[in-house]
Amino acid sequence: MNENPTPTSEDGRRRGAGPRINRRIVLAERPKGPVTPAHFRLESAPVPELIDGQVLVRNRFLSLDPYMRSRMEDARSYAKPVAVGEVMVGGTVGEIVESRHRRLAVGDRVNGVLGWQHYAISDGTGLRRLPAGDSVPLSAYLGTVGMPGVTAWYGLNRILEPVAGQTLCVSAASGAVGSVVGQLARIAGSRVVGIAGGEAKCRLVRERYGFDACIDYKAGRLEADLAAATPDGVDMLFENVGGAIMDSVLGRMNPFGRVAVCGLIAGYNGEDISISQVRSILVNRLKVQGFIVSDHPDVWPEALAALGAGVSAGTLKYHETIAEGLEQAPGAFIGLLAGRNVGKQLVRLADADEPEIRPC
Amino acid sequence: MNENPTPTSEDGRRRGAGPRINRRIVLAERPKGPVTPAHFRLESAPVPELIDGQVLVRNRFLSLDPYMRSRMEDARSYAKPVAVGEVMVGGTVGEIVESRHRRLAVGDRVNGVLGWQHYAISDGTGLRRLPAGDSVPLSAYLGTVGMPGVTAWYGLNRILEPVAGQTLCVSAASGAVGSVVGQLARIAGSRVVGIAGGEAKCRLVRERYGFDACIDYKAGRLEADLAAATPDGVDMLFENVGGAIMDSVLGRMNPFGRVAVCGLIAGYNGEDISISQVRSILVNRLKVQGFIVSDHPDVWPEALAALGAGVSAGTLKYHETIAEGLEQAPGAFIGLLAGRNVGKQLVRLADADEPEIRPC
Repeated sequence: MNENPTPTSEDGRRRGAGPRINRRIVLAERPKGPVTPAHFRLESAPVPELIDGQVLVRNRFLSLDPYMRSRMEDARSYAKPVAVGEVMVGGTVGEIVESRHRRLAVGDRVNGVLGWQHYAISDGTGLRRLPAGDSVPLSAYLGTVGMPGVTAWYGLNRILEPVAGQTLCVSAASGAVGSVVGQLARIAGSRVVGIAGGEAKCRLVRERYGFDACIDYKAGRLEADLAAATPDGVDMLFENVGGAIMDSVLGRMNPFGRVAVCGLIAGYNGEDISISQVRSILVNRLKVQGFIVSDHPDVWPEALAALGAGVSAGTLKYHETIAEGLEQAPGAFIGLLAGRNVGKQLVRLADADEPEIRPC
Repeated sequence: MNENPTPTSEDGRRRGAGPRINRRIVLAERPKGPVTPAHFRLESAPVPELIDGQVLVRNRFLSLDPYMRSRMEDARSYAKPVAVGEVMVGGTVGEIVESRHRRLAVGDRVNGVLGWQHYAISDGTGLRRLPAGDSVPLSAYLGTVGMPGVTAWYGLNRILEPVAGQTLCVSAASGAVGSVVGQLARIAGSRVVGIAGGEAKCRLVRERYGFDACIDYKAGRLEADLAAATPDGVDMLFENVGGAIMDSVLGRMNPFGRVAVCGLIAGYNGEDISISQVRSILVNRLKVQGFIVSDHPDVWPEALAALGAGVSAGTLKYHETIAEGLEQAPGAFIGLLAGRNVGKQLVRLADADEPEIRPC
């Protein structure tokens, strides 16, 4: 973190040095099908001077998440698309390195949605100051104690409403959201069955996260394995994937089952994610509900308190895949969409990326 | 209603006559595809003597409803299938003609699920005594002031939760449920768009039930007509049909839309009723909920009071298609599944059907 060899004043402004150089990744082109590195462009630009009310944040970790795929498109969606030429959207944690803001000081650690870049100027809107001196690692504020964790918490507690003894199924079970869903549901007394791609992920889900069972959908026996793992049917489905996986679980639902639709990663490249088990919705009186965690800012404090306590106490486990350096972000994102990461996919925005402070 | 020329005692038992003869239609065979008359059989059998605690009901009207199609199958469903050889399930209104029950008397009019037959013995379970001397016609207790009306009321008020100024779409709009959904929603201030098959039904929906618009899905321009009729999108869908109709409306849903899945008549013969607009559930944070009105006996009194008042006051209109005589029931049911009825499909169980009281 020793990145300011140049003398600075109390507000963080550097004396006697040229402007800081920001490195950032912008959307170069909208994808029509699968995302490729050509859809992104790495740029450098000087950081402008702050004006009153602003802070400059040095991002330390960038979160990569499936929702970014939708933002690359110009489709009708729940959020404004990223414009071509604009910095890619993304959640970040970092620290304030300059401040002309009354309530945010140099050295404060903050979580925000500051994008795929090293530096960002903010007026504080949407920035969350992180607790000082707690035992939660900085990167966890992008995962279990951040947006993915709150997503898991909301879908489970506000839509699925777990009941002890009932069976919950969660797809993308080894992921940043799925792993938290399953661990919270087990704490609530539910039987938890994960679905993940590959035996390595399934082992992680069973052994590290303690799920009762995990099904490898890539093994090609989804229906049979699901039936074997859910002898009493399924009461709750936390859906991150869609398509054939969602359909198979819908066919196992019990009366009065609940389905939280959190993501449909199977359809991000325009694949068909039709469901045929529509009759199960009627026959079993299912509630199928889509949600976006950012619609529910009211639950964040309660959820984050519970998640932070779980991480501090070691009752909530997590796993990170960390790409080193901003230039690795496009490749890591493409890998995430293909399911190649394990656990939370992060990018470390390391000092070594910064040409202006590299020794010549 | 003059059906008892034989002298009777106070409890309704007939003196000096042979037993009453019941005529009934039983399930002869389970359908594999479309229902045909061969799946039913008309039988006659003497009515047994009552024992203490029982009543004998003479059914006057039989209701035909889409749910009966599912009961003909041995599939996993929300209700026990009708056994082969058993009387077909069905809602009825009639009057008590014999009683050995403490609280039900000869002459009481009752609504129940007494099946496709002239007579039924009951211990009173599931029988609802109808108000005496009100201005609601007997047959309406099988429609707007009966199960279909309560179904409409529940789905609208408990799942869709109508908001004034929002747009509601209802399929099978001219039917016993759909017509009530639309009228109640208009009273609640919603803009109401129906979908029905054929211009005659659409005219009924617009002119008699006062919907803002009605789309004839048989005209072959469903998507375009739907877009034109819902310029502000759709906030609520009351789904009775499924398949392509449901999918088209899902594609028009607004954020935070609600979908009540009440029936999937498009799939009753095993047709594909897949939906492809799954992404709309996530993107628009939809709540899609299946329901069966019989799960919610608690709402019936409130709903029936409101529906009865609406019919008495003339603010709730309805239309009946009445088949004359029990032997017409299979054909009328097949017609219902094909959408050939208009409004509530009933069968009048007329005296002329009864061989035992015909003059020789």
